[in-house]
Amino acid sequence: MVPHLITALAGPLSELEERILEAAPVIERWFRQEWMEHTPPIYAAARVHNAGFKLATLDLDLFPRGWHLLAESTMPLAVLAAQAAIEKICPEARRLLIVPENGAPADADLASLHRLQQIFRMAGLEVRFGSLDPALNATTQLAHPDASAPMPLEPIQRHKTRLHTQDFEPCSVLLCNALGAGVPGILEDLFGQHLLPPLQAGWSTRRRSRHRSFYMDAAKRFGKLIGVDPWLLAPFADAGSTDSPQAIAALRERANALLARIRRKYRSYGIQEQPCLLLASDAGPRGVPVQIIRDPREIDPTTLPAEVLLQEGVPTRERVDAAVAESWVYSIDRYIVGGYYCVHDGDASEMCDACSSFVPQAIAEPPQLPRAGAPDHNRFYMYGVIARLALVAASYELEATDPEWLSLQDEEE
Amino acid sequence: MVPHLITALAGPLSELEERILEAAPVIERWFRQEWMEHTPPIYAAARVHNAGFKLATLDLDLFPRGWHLLAESTMPLAVLAAQAAIEKICPEARRLLIVPENGAPADADLASLHRLQQIFRMAGLEVRFGSLDPALNATTQLAHPDASAPMPLEPIQRHKTRLHTQDFEPCSVLLCNALGAGVPGILEDLFGQHLLPPLQAGWSTRRRSRHRSFYMDAAKRFGKLIGVDPWLLAPFADAGSTDSPQAIAALRERANALLARIRRKYRSYGIQEQPCLLLASDAGPRGVPVQIIRDPREIDPTTLPAEVLLQEGVPTRERVDAAVAESWVYSIDRYIVGGYYCVHDGDASEMCDACSSFVPQAIAEPPQLPRAGAPDHNRFYMYGVIARLALVAASYELEATDPEWLSLQDEEE
Repeated sequence: MVPHLITALAGPLSELEERILEAAPVIERWFRQEWMEHTPPIYAAARVHNAGFKLATLDLDLFPRGWHLLAESTMPLAVLAAQAAIEKICPEARRLLIVPENGAPADADLASLHRLQQIFRMAGLEVRFGSLDPALNATTQLAHPDASAPMPLEPIQRHKTRLHTQDFEPCSVLLCNALGAGVPGILEDLFGQHLLPPLQAGWSTRRRSRHRSFYMDAAKRFGKLIGVDPWLLAPFADAGSTDSPQAIAALRERANALLARIRRKYRSYGIQEQPCLLLASDAGPRGVPVQIIRDPREIDPTTLPAEVLLQEGVPTRERVDAAVAESWVYSIDRYIVGGYYCVHDGDASEMCDACSSFVPQAIAEPPQLPRAGAPDHNRFYMYGVIARLALVAASYELEATDPEWLSLQDEEE
Repeated sequence: MVPHLITALAGPLSELEERILEAAPVIERWFRQEWMEHTPPIYAAARVHNAGFKLATLDLDLFPRGWHLLAESTMPLAVLAAQAAIEKICPEARRLLIVPENGAPADADLASLHRLQQIFRMAGLEVRFGSLDPALNATTQLAHPDASAPMPLEPIQRHKTRLHTQDFEPCSVLLCNALGAGVPGILEDLFGQHLLPPLQAGWSTRRRSRHRSFYMDAAKRFGKLIGVDPWLLAPFADAGSTDSPQAIAALRERANALLARIRRKYRSYGIQEQPCLLLASDAGPRGVPVQIIRDPREIDPTTLPAEVLLQEGVPTRERVDAAVAESWVYSIDRYIVGGYYCVHDGDASEMCDACSSFVPQAIAEPPQLPRAGAPDHNRFYMYGVIARLALVAASYELEATDPEWLSLQDEEE
């Protein structure tokens, strides 16, 4: 289920949108069955582009910030979802430790951490902040105008297989730290505490190309369910490296093949646009493309990272005050809890890093609804479907990279 | 967790309110533990009176109508709660049959049924309507302006241990029929289908006085948890009958004792009001008091039903446009999903039957919040707590009257 949030895009529904809205009960049941077998990430934010002819996630952030950017009217949803998540993961839970990134947090990060604290507090947990930063020796006060009380940040310690701070032993640990610099030893081989999300969600293990491939698999199964071409829900993607002239030549070949595949799709659907590819880091917290190319010869290996994700560009048709707007859809556990637009002045195929502004998507009230359509006409529903497809992909991805699961596989061989 | 809805009552928090808001994490954990052991009713509506000095539910409806009166902004909460309920009860569920009261539904009932259909449809179920009415021989179309498609009402049939309509076999059956005329044979000894709520929630089994007694038990345990007198959360109550002069004399004595207990409480808290008792039917869908008395001599047995509930009156301090307003708090499974005010021109201690108007409680957005208080200052939270206390009581009540559970008890003896 997806709340009815206000979308920037108005006007008639596309054929794809109509197909998805019609199939809602079947779709909900499909997701319900997926979650019987697989575990969604504790929280996530999906970058969704609606091109009109296709609708797809371009990226899934497993350590989302920006919680404070969600409309306040969506807060009850976040709390309800957090509550459902706790009931499932650990109904006995009493205490949660939130672990921010190392270093001094920016104001926006503080606001986001404060919002997360509120959400989990209202879901019935005592919430504190703990730091992995080796430079932090004593408790420091995080100060934020939204917080009525100070937010102490305490150094994390370890006793045997469990983490704690000076006088606080949590049942669960919520990582808001993407582990971009690798997994610190203190987090390894924990036992009796829930680490959310698991370590393999961090960037020392995760690869965007692996996520894209699980996402395409999910889109294929889902496309079969509702009778649509999976390409209408997923970008084509591939990966390569830049560590030798041979690798760079192979990268260009792959880019060429990818562009040809997209061109064929465009032709078969009568789409009058020029395909483009986004080149981004395959690993590492910054997933914003470093190059947008329309021809393999435009690839400039000198500015690329060692591991490169090649991904089909999907333009966003949404505009807020005439500026290009990207939709970010937030989830807690298996529930969509809110979203916002990130508005920027770049190309419509670009993914935004430094947005010029954020526009929270509020819950639609009757006067704001386009009442001409069906009464259930909830355009945001599709965004929620597509974001949940990414969650399904992430659940497979986190299983496939789970060290315990992998070692079980080894034993069986 | 409880959404932040706008309450009519403004002004500073009472000591009780502050105590409850402060204890939110402890309270949420307490409820979570209750739901690990006990099953809340599938849906309910609690009548909540806030007297300032005390806050209590006066009645819990296990077959709530009025779903259409909830603010549209709260719909996503209802859907999310329905989804969580389905996941718990029967994740494989695909089809739901809603069973309205017999006879031609009024416009308000149609609107409520339509809203329920929308909620469960968006939660991923195919939803149809089935009737127990023996007078209904063929499918009839329920017509309501809010419904984009007709709402067919089909006669319910039974095959072996399962209910179905002509071409629809549901996994679950949602009773919107309080079974005031007794349990029809067609509903007995079903197997392989979920009947929600269970039969003993109907009025051939249920007694208001039994609910009151489980509610007081819940209030005692809860009061101990947060350190408040349970009387601040629960009305005193007792029951009696009118089937003989002796019974009526006993009823007056009980009323006298109850009034004395309330008077003592009023005195100890320095409350300058005159206690009153509400006399209502102990069994039967209509729970609105037939008499309000301040002295046992005022009891008029000729207008009373055979089984009588005696309940402490709790005045509501809330006003909408200077008129007395009662709060109704709606839940699905263990989640609070919305509420509205029922506005009437009677006494503040009365419970309203024919409200002059309904005022949906919308989700509070920042501009509407009394920002002077703490950022978490959610006055509706307490209403949600008190309504959930009634849900806890109902879960014990439905266990205690479960025929299967009772027959197991018999075997053990």
